Amino acid sequence: MSGEFAMYTAPVLIAGEWRQAAESGRFQPTNPTTATGIDRWYPTSSWRDCEAALEAAATAADALRLAPAEARARFLELFADAIEASAEEICSLAHEETGLPLSPRLLDVELPRTTGQLRAAATAARTFSWARATIDTANNIRSMHAPIGPVLIFGPNNFPLAFNGVAGGDFAAAIAAGNPVIAKAHSAHPGTCQQLAALAAEALADAGLPAATLQMIYATSREDGYRMVSDQRLGAATFTGSRTAGLALKQAADEAGIPFYAELSSINPVVLLPGALRERGSELAEEFAGSCLMGSGQFCTNPGLVIVPASTEGELFIERTGELFDSAVPGTLLSAGTLQGLQQAVAQLEDAGATRVTHNIECDDNRLCLPNTLLHVSGDTFLQHPAAFQTEAFGNAALVVSSQSTEQTAEILAQLEGNLTGCIYSSLADDDDEDYARLAPVLRAKVGRLLNDKMPTGVAVSPAMNHGGPFPASGHPGFTAVGVPASMIRFSKLDCYDNVRPQRLPPLLSDANPLGAWRCVDGNWTREPIC
Amino acid sequence: MSGEFAMYTAPVLIAGEWRQAAESGRFQPTNPTTATGIDRWYPTSSWRDCEAALEAAATAADALRLAPAEARARFLELFADAIEASAEEICSLAHEETGLPLSPRLLDVELPRTTGQLRAAATAARTFSWARATIDTANNIRSMHAPIGPVLIFGPNNFPLAFNGVAGGDFAAAIAAGNPVIAKAHSAHPGTCQQLAALAAEALADAGLPAATLQMIYATSREDGYRMVSDQRLGAATFTGSRTAGLALKQAADEAGIPFYAELSSINPVVLLPGALRERGSELAEEFAGSCLMGSGQFCTNPGLVIVPASTEGELFIERTGELFDSAVPGTLLSAGTLQGLQQAVAQLEDAGATRVTHNIECDDNRLCLPNTLLHVSGDTFLQHPAAFQTEAFGNAALVVSSQSTEQTAEILAQLEGNLTGCIYSSLADDDDEDYARLAPVLRAKVGRLLNDKMPTGVAVSPAMNHGGPFPASGHPGFTAVGVPASMIRFSKLDCYDNVRPQRLPPLLSDANPLGAWRCVDGNWTREPIC
Repeated sequence: MSGEFAMYTAPVLIAGEWRQAAESGRFQPTNPTTATGIDRWYPTSSWRDCEAALEAAATAADALRLAPAEARARFLELFADAIEASAEEICSLAHEETGLPLSPRLLDVELPRTTGQLRAAATAARTFSWARATIDTANNIRSMHAPIGPVLIFGPNNFPLAFNGVAGGDFAAAIAAGNPVIAKAHSAHPGTCQQLAALAAEALADAGLPAATLQMIYATSREDGYRMVSDQRLGAATFTGSRTAGLALKQAADEAGIPFYAELSSINPVVLLPGALRERGSELAEEFAGSCLMGSGQFCTNPGLVIVPASTEGELFIERTGELFDSAVPGTLLSAGTLQGLQQAVAQLEDAGATRVTHNIECDDNRLCLPNTLLHVSGDTFLQHPAAFQTEAFGNAALVVSSQSTEQTAEILAQLEGNLTGCIYSSLADDDDEDYARLAPVLRAKVGRLLNDKMPTGVAVSPAMNHGGPFPASGHPGFTAVGVPASMIRFSKLDCYDNVRPQRLPPLLSDANPLGAWRCVDGNWTREPIC
Repeated sequence: MSGEFAMYTAPVLIAGEWRQAAESGRFQPTNPTTATGIDRWYPTSSWRDCEAALEAAATAADALRLAPAEARARFLELFADAIEASAEEICSLAHEETGLPLSPRLLDVELPRTTGQLRAAATAARTFSWARATIDTANNIRSMHAPIGPVLIFGPNNFPLAFNGVAGGDFAAAIAAGNPVIAKAHSAHPGTCQQLAALAAEALADAGLPAATLQMIYATSREDGYRMVSDQRLGAATFTGSRTAGLALKQAADEAGIPFYAELSSINPVVLLPGALRERGSELAEEFAGSCLMGSGQFCTNPGLVIVPASTEGELFIERTGELFDSAVPGTLLSAGTLQGLQQAVAQLEDAGATRVTHNIECDDNRLCLPNTLLHVSGDTFLQHPAAFQTEAFGNAALVVSSQSTEQTAEILAQLEGNLTGCIYSSLADDDDEDYARLAPVLRAKVGRLLNDKMPTGVAVSPAMNHGGPFPASGHPGFTAVGVPASMIRFSKLDCYDNVRPQRLPPLLSDANPLGAWRCVDGNWTREPIC
């Protein structure tokens, strides 16, 4: 496109209508693979768009509360079908905007994950497994989780499909729980968002749900962002991204009493115990390097901190990992901002006293990338500046700490902030059992998910998953952002019915239990009706 | 006491020791029945006490995580037994400090409720019903709710036993979930707190739990309060009390990422539909007046707003309720602060345009009290200043709104802030079904607990209870402060175990399920082991 067409900006989706934005500015995304601008323009919305979206969302929320759960389930399934039917087109757009490879990633991993999540959420909506119906027959008091109201989603840059605000995990959970969504598209992949939103809008119509069940804008001013998250028409908001931006939004939401689920940072510590390194040090180096460099290190659960013994085996691990880092082709980073943030984080770690293991092999200049970077620091030095050494390097970089002893490792773990995950690798012959017993409780208290002998980058969409953790990994350590039905609880309020007449109860809480749902009746879980 | 003994201040309980406070000031409680000071002095702690308590709590939290659940259950039961054994003494102290009657209230209602809660929490601790164990056998991912860390409790003034920071619902829930408690005694009933804490300390020793499982201070400076709720050693904090104080503490906790559960205000709207008033208007007046004046109106769920039709039946209801208010002896208020707050709130409601139905019959000057006060406003006027007319009058006062129509009632309900409860009274002959269908969804979205034909002041300790609601009723609408096991979830983090070796799993998540606990295994709830 050129000339006058370049002045055209993509429409926003508000109140069921693709309309020209009330525009206060415009931007274009970048193709990370060529480090050049993509010739498509997207609007920064003024408050007028935000206001219209909030108002339409409030109305849609009322309508959704009365709509059958089956319609929500049907929508989620239709949408999943539509995404699969347009898979190639969506993934090629996502590839253009994010530089993430089509395979193995967008087409064969992230897209199936996305549709799988949508379908799992559909099942949860249908079975009410998320609602945790609880009935006290003696007192005739009944409760269940119910929709919280419109959910504002700030999607992340690193998963243009599976965590996209218009198709990803938060979206699926919010809708399945009965709430309309207002998505703030990520400005690094607005075209992908637009295309997904178009498919969603059609599926909404086909399922007979209110058109404003999904609305989307591309960008707002910071001030309008704060104003949106604190609007009383909102039920909740979620944010995945930089700590600074997230904390500012969280503060605005907190002051207004709006539940705000944030995923702010995580360095995902990995502890390699001496027996494990002796047994399979070389394997562990491969496993670690593979996990750390996967997706150019741009996973929330990317292992950014490894603690090894200050021993010959530890040194060998570091050396071997350094070689693997040097010999792997650096991945393309998501954006110029990601590249800059990564460079800054590496510089901060070096300023604090970390030394470079890798050899800073030059990167292809024609795309956004940085050499794979492995840094090293002693346990003593780490403990002198524990905060500085927890700087998150979002991208293909990691820090290895050489610990003098199990006690020093315990001290290091005790100094950690909250994290999404923590892993311990130990001897398969149980040589490390004493160390494990000493360290696991310390690490357990700091993380949402504790792993054994497994890198954290795989986040299964499992009912037992926790993708969350103590602050600042997330805003509240009791909630998970991945896994159905647990992730839906974030978007619910607890609705209690006290002495409410039988015919006025939601079917889920009626004696008859027509849905055959799991309910906790007088302390026992059952799918039976109440006789 | 007199002379030099008056200089003595009660000791604080820190790190298992009753010790003289690091004192930055002192105060004495007031006997509301005589409106005179009680000759006992209590310290305001300086930061030194707070720091010592936080440090001891962090250590106790680690020890508690390793202690068996049975020890926590045993403690809660021993403590309940001890409270019963000292019932008369405790209640007479509580009566002296709060003016609440011994009967019907402290001895026969609140104390049994308190011990009942402690025993229910003991059962929940033993059975792990609160932990919501979830197992995904295919992926070998398992999760459960686990202790969140030290809990700081700011207890309220209105329930010196059942919500006391050292014996009440939050205390029982926090301990049962495996967390140590730091209690800030309410300064209106410090002697009651001291006595309960002494019994708790003995029971802790008998149960073999860490002495710092309960610590107590009486008061701090505001700044130290903010500093405490934002301390990273804390797992969570709870507050029940004034909105201003609560919001300031909430802000400090929010900024530090510490979950903060607040109960800030609630006017508990009651809607009387035309058919109900026609059928049983006089009964409803008695029911309402009884509920509203119970405990001098100092219940969180006190009905402070009644909406009636602007009709002859509505007028009769107002008249009859006014007579009942005028003829009832005003209860004693909890403190001079409560009296002042109530006077201010009534003045604000009158300034906004409410008129007085009651005749302001003089109150006994020798105690803290205000005449029972019923105010009235038209629906039109209410809708002109909806915020002003939602001023919470904590005490024996209420506002009746005369609504012109069902639609006006819907508009009024739509203007309400979040509340703990909302009630609708309707015709027993189903004459009001259309109105109910119109109004219930609007009210439902605004409250935690919806009632039919029942006043909200009874808050059953039921697994299905919700004592919480949309902001500002509470800080997050998904949690309840009353009801076991649901209330314990507030004091938990979600702990996921991914590929963790079988012998390293908590027993609750092991295949064998030695506790016979309810667990959700591959989507189905069961108490069976995994074969």
